[in-house]
This record gives sequence, C-alpha cells and structure tokens, in this order.
Amino acid sequence: MGYLASGVHCGIKQHKRDLALVVSEAPASVAGVFTTNRVKAAPVLWCQEVVRRGTARAVVVNSGNANACTGEQGWQDVREMAERTAAVLGFSAEEVLVSSTGVIGVPLPMEAVRRGIELAAAKLSRSGEEAAEAILTTDAFPKTSAVVTTVGEVPVTVGGMAKGAGMIHPRLATTLCFLTTDALVPAPVLQEALSRAVAASFNRITVDGDTSTNDTVVVLANGRAGAPAVEGGEALERFTEALTAVAQDLARMVVRDGEGAQRLVQVVVEGAADERDAQRAALAIATSLLVKTMLHGGEPNWGRVMAAVGYSGAEVDERRVAVWFGDVQVVRNGLGVGGVFHQAAEALRREEVTVRVDLGLGDGRWWVWTCDLGEEYVRINGSYIT
Amino acid sequence: MGYLASGVHCGIKQHKRDLALVVSEAPASVAGVFTTNRVKAAPVLWCQEVVRRGTARAVVVNSGNANACTGEQGWQDVREMAERTAAVLGFSAEEVLVSSTGVIGVPLPMEAVRRGIELAAAKLSRSGEEAAEAILTTDAFPKTSAVVTTVGEVPVTVGGMAKGAGMIHPRLATTLCFLTTDALVPAPVLQEALSRAVAASFNRITVDGDTSTNDTVVVLANGRAGAPAVEGGEALERFTEALTAVAQDLARMVVRDGEGAQRLVQVVVEGAADERDAQRAALAIATSLLVKTMLHGGEPNWGRVMAAVGYSGAEVDERRVAVWFGDVQVVRNGLGVGGVFHQAAEALRREEVTVRVDLGLGDGRWWVWTCDLGEEYVRINGSYIT
Repeated sequence: MGYLASGVHCGIKQHKRDLALVVSEAPASVAGVFTTNRVKAAPVLWCQEVVRRGTARAVVVNSGNANACTGEQGWQDVREMAERTAAVLGFSAEEVLVSSTGVIGVPLPMEAVRRGIELAAAKLSRSGEEAAEAILTTDAFPKTSAVVTTVGEVPVTVGGMAKGAGMIHPRLATTLCFLTTDALVPAPVLQEALSRAVAASFNRITVDGDTSTNDTVVVLANGRAGAPAVEGGEALERFTEALTAVAQDLARMVVRDGEGAQRLVQVVVEGAADERDAQRAALAIATSLLVKTMLHGGEPNWGRVMAAVGYSGAEVDERRVAVWFGDVQVVRNGLGVGGVFHQAAEALRREEVTVRVDLGLGDGRWWVWTCDLGEEYVRINGSYIT
Repeated sequence: MGYLASGVHCGIKQHKRDLALVVSEAPASVAGVFTTNRVKAAPVLWCQEVVRRGTARAVVVNSGNANACTGEQGWQDVREMAERTAAVLGFSAEEVLVSSTGVIGVPLPMEAVRRGIELAAAKLSRSGEEAAEAILTTDAFPKTSAVVTTVGEVPVTVGGMAKGAGMIHPRLATTLCFLTTDALVPAPVLQEALSRAVAASFNRITVDGDTSTNDTVVVLANGRAGAPAVEGGEALERFTEALTAVAQDLARMVVRDGEGAQRLVQVVVEGAADERDAQRAALAIATSLLVKTMLHGGEPNWGRVMAAVGYSGAEVDERRVAVWFGDVQVVRNGLGVGGVFHQAAEALRREEVTVRVDLGLGDGRWWVWTCDLGEEYVRINGSYIT
C-alpha cells in the first residue's frame, strides 16, 4: 500500500505505547472530518489547516494527553511535533498531521514526545499493529480494518485504525480514526467520499453522548496502487463503498469497546414522519441511561423505550407504535405483547442486539449503534486521572 | 391545614406501602404542571382534565405501576380509581386527582388497588408521613416539606411531598409532587404561582436526562386558614415565594436521592451571551456522563467541563472561560490553574458541591441541580423489574 507505521512507548503514559507514526511513501491527498465541539484541541486546528492545503505525508499521534485547553503552549507543542516529525522523515512540517488523545488541560510532556518521535521513526515497518495500539486510551483492544476494491480493474486497498472508547456521540466525526488507501483520489473527491463514509459510520455511534475536543477522522490517498484516479461516477461509488465499509467496521469496534460495554446494540427507528424525526427518536433511545442500563441488565422493560420515544421531540401517536427486541415483538399498537418476556429477555442478552421501533406514521428511517451501560463505565470514568 | 392523608400497602408492590390518599376537608382550587413526554400515562390525562375544571377534593396515588402504555384498559382503571375514591369519601369522581408511578406497560392490579382505596380511606389522619412513603419507588427516603407565610397577616401553610428518583430531567414538571395549602387562591392565580415555583425547582433538576410518562406536580388550595384570597400583588409574591421554597426543598431532596447519588451538585453558568446559552451550557455539564462520573469519583478533571461547554451549542470563546469547583478556581482564561489539584478534589468531595462556569461573554445566567453518577445507578436500573 505504500505506507509505513510504528508505535512506541515514550513515557506520556506509564507503561503502554503512547506514540504512533503513519507515513506515506509518496505524497498523498488528504481529507478530514473533525469534532464540532467549540472547544477544539490544538492538534485539531493544525489538522484542519493541513487538510485545507490538501496534501500530507505523515500522521503523528500521541495518546495519554489530549493537548486540549492548553493555550499558546499547546499550539507551539503541536507545531514542534510536526516540525520534528518532518525533520526526521525529510518532509515539510505542513505535510504532517498531528493528533492527540487523553486527558484535557495538561501541557504535553514534550521531552517524552521528542524521544517518541525519534524512536518511532527508527521503527517504521509495513505493519500497522503497533501504531494501532499506541493510539488507544481506555480501549480494551486495538481496532484495525481493511478491504480491497478495484478502480479501473486495478485492486486498491483501504485500511484504517481507530480508538474509542468514551466521549462518543454522533456530532460529526467522533473518536480518532486514521484511514489510508493506495488509490489515487484528488483531495476534493476524497473529502466527499470521507464525508459520506463518516455519515454512515462514525456519525452513527454513541457511547455516552459526550463529544470530545479532539475527534478526528482523516484519510490519506497516495495512489501507489497504480490505478486510474478516482474522479467521480462508478469509481467514486466503489471507492466510497470501500471507505464506508472500513469506517463502519471500525465504528462498530469503537461501540463494542464502549467503556465497560458487553453488547453492541443497533437502534432502528422506522415509520417516522420524516428522517429527522427518526433520528431524534433513535438518538433518544440510544442515549437514554434507562434504556442503556436495561440493555446491560437484559430485562425487556420496553416502557423505557416508549418513554424515550415520547420525549425525543419526534411526532408520536402512542397507539401506532410497535417495538421489537431482536425478532421478538414486545409492543403492538402502543401496548405490551403478552407472554414474550422470556423470549424478549433472551433477545436482549445476545452480544449483538437490535432494538427496532416502528412509529407507524410515515417513511422516515434512521439507525444508530449504541452499547449497554454497566458499572464498569462508572468505575473507569470515576477515576480516570489516578 | 384542613387536609387528611394516609398511606397503605395493598399488594401492588411486594412489601412496601403502595397507595396514598390526600384529602382536603373543603373543596380546593387546583393547579398542575405535567410531563411534556408525548407518551402520557392515563392518570396524567385524567389530572389534566381535573385541573382544567379548577376544583379538587382528593388525590389518590399508587406506586409500583405507572399505568402508562396501557391503552383503553388504563383509562378505565383511572376512572375506576377516581370513582371508588369519590364514592368512599362522598365526593364526585371529577374532583379526584389520580396519579401513578412505577413500571410502564403493565395493567394495574385493580383488585389490590380497590382494596388499597378502602384501607387508605379508613386510615386517614392529620399526618402525611405514611402517604409520603406510599408514593415512593426506588427512592431511599420520603420527601416532605412545609413552610408558613402570611396573607393579610393571617398565617398560611404550604406543605408538600414528592418522589424521585430516576427519569429526572427538566422538561416541565418532573417526578410526582403533591402540594397543599390552606391559603385561599383562585385556580388561575394558583396556576401562575405553581408555574413560577416549578420553573425554579422541578425544572432545575436532572438525574439522568430521562423524562417520564407520569411527571405530575399538583397543588391544592382549600382556604381553611381563613386568610383573604390571594389575587395578585404582594400577597401573590409572598405565596409564590412560599410555594417555591417548598418546591425547591422537595426538588433538592429528589436530586439528593438520585439513584445511587452521593452528592447534590449545583451547576451555575454565568457570563453567557444570553440566558438561553447559559441554560444550554448548564444542562450539558449537568447531564454529561463524564462530568457526573467525575463528580462521583471526586477527581477535579475539569477538561470534561470544558468539553461539555464546548458541545453544548452555547457561544464559547475558550480563552475567556473560567471554572470553579466550590471556591477553588481550576480554569482561568481557558487554561488550568496550577497547584490546586488537592484543594479542588476536596471541594468536589463534599456532600454539596458547586460547579461554576463563567463564559466571560455577557450577562446570561442559569443554574441547575444535578447529582453524581455511581455504580449504584446502574445496579438499580439494570434489574428494575426482577
């Protein structure tokens, strides 16, 4: 694919890998989607400038420290990360994307970061596994994915890595995700493909309703596959499909790894007055603490789904609502279906669960992935610093 | 005060009191504020009709079953509860408020309810303690409050009881709350006073962001104090103040009893561009799972407050933001204040905590009470039915 990567431990975190490099062997076009949070970390502002210029050669990422709410110092540190990475690799700083994740409001330990960049540059290889580890924070497992498609009959690959696991909510991009491809895609086309892929993946996941200061999804396209350029039409559709598949795969992993989560839950709302209403209802269900704790406990307490639909702001006629847990219908015409408690409980206790609601009003449909909320989430987030 | 009350166990719940009566010795004017959830329980619809007529004599309340999402049967059951209560007390059914709280979607066990009404009517007394117990669900303690004020130099009393403890969020009324007074207040004036009291109390509390199908706050005013009628002016101000004091006292108890909560937390946002923005920011902070778990753990991880402010939708200039935990300033000009970790941690570990944010942009100010989120919330809500 023409990419090298590495992940090292440099001392930002106590023991785990905390600095990653991804390097393209050729100049790559770049596109990105970033947090909508009005408090944006310095590296996000930096990446937005790189993406505006449209070309990148490398990504340097640290975990353990978000470099957010760090003021002028934070901005200087981002610049230095880009400059040092560029210097050691022989690029220009303007071609280096910088990304950070971790605790907010603490200046980056730059000695460690400098050491990390040197170490990581010396360990670049064809494997992305160590880089995928080095970008994690509270994640339980690394998240990588790849698919192959063809452009003009030439196989091209789309790969990626992502991190979760808290502060996950669908307001534009969520989490950190780095995608790479050896397809040849001009930056504006790449941005279009990425925006579509994110709308169907990272904008469809919620763990806790929080939106972080550092959310970043970027894609590099270096053309090393030797395929014709993706400019539009059929080729763009196929490329977008592949990009979406990788982004969805990674997004699902992020939810599955929601802090303390045991289940991946797809909430589907259909029959809404319009798509906007379907989205409102789906998000209300997917973020309700009462629904999420129900999904954790595995009791089919469908009243909580009805209540969430009711306060979602969507148009609702209680007497038309139907609800399914998996394949088991638990509500018909707004009333509980008798004799299905045990079947419904069983449907809720699977590793992958679907909660489907039909509002019976129109054609609006939307879905979102969420997870259950367990004691573990509270344990992890109650003592994050110490 | 001219009110009688009782609370009994009739078998809706396994062991605890589950049916309450409150009876006015004279016809009382009535006002109410109800859930904004589009899925409204049958008793809410019933109460709205009683309030529209403006007069009531009694309130019958059951806990353990919400009589929500119960269709035509639910409506018939409400009517029967009103009729039986009216019959045993010698009133008309149209003067009986009916309220229910508990699990959604299960028909009321009417045999138990009928028995409960008989039992409760036989046990009416001047004490409200047993009634306050009988309206509880997952609450850890009963919630009652009373204050005395004067109207035309005659002392009048405002009393009340409330229940929590989950599905608490400020979208109009929240929870169940029954207020009584021996002041003489015509229904339209009573409604105005109640709306103002609720805006400063039950509309300022959030436990989990969910809004229930059954939220009800009603007030009865029977004029038994012999004071002049409260029609407006100074008398209305004083009466509203007293009503607000009782409502705030009860609302604070509801938050303090938030499922598994250890701390009562007031979130104050000031310096916002306008009041609406202050509300957005305060609610984002007060409902953020990451902030609430931080409040549980007691670590001063102020970045989570910054992140919540950033995604709240309020206008934010990061460089102007200041944050205090109690009296300890932890953020100045958007940056962390050094050397205050231990003081700040101590401020967060009190029983009553203030989180104050100054956005530095204008005069907008709003506040809300919330609580921390602990493992206990998950434990309670993960297995509610069984």
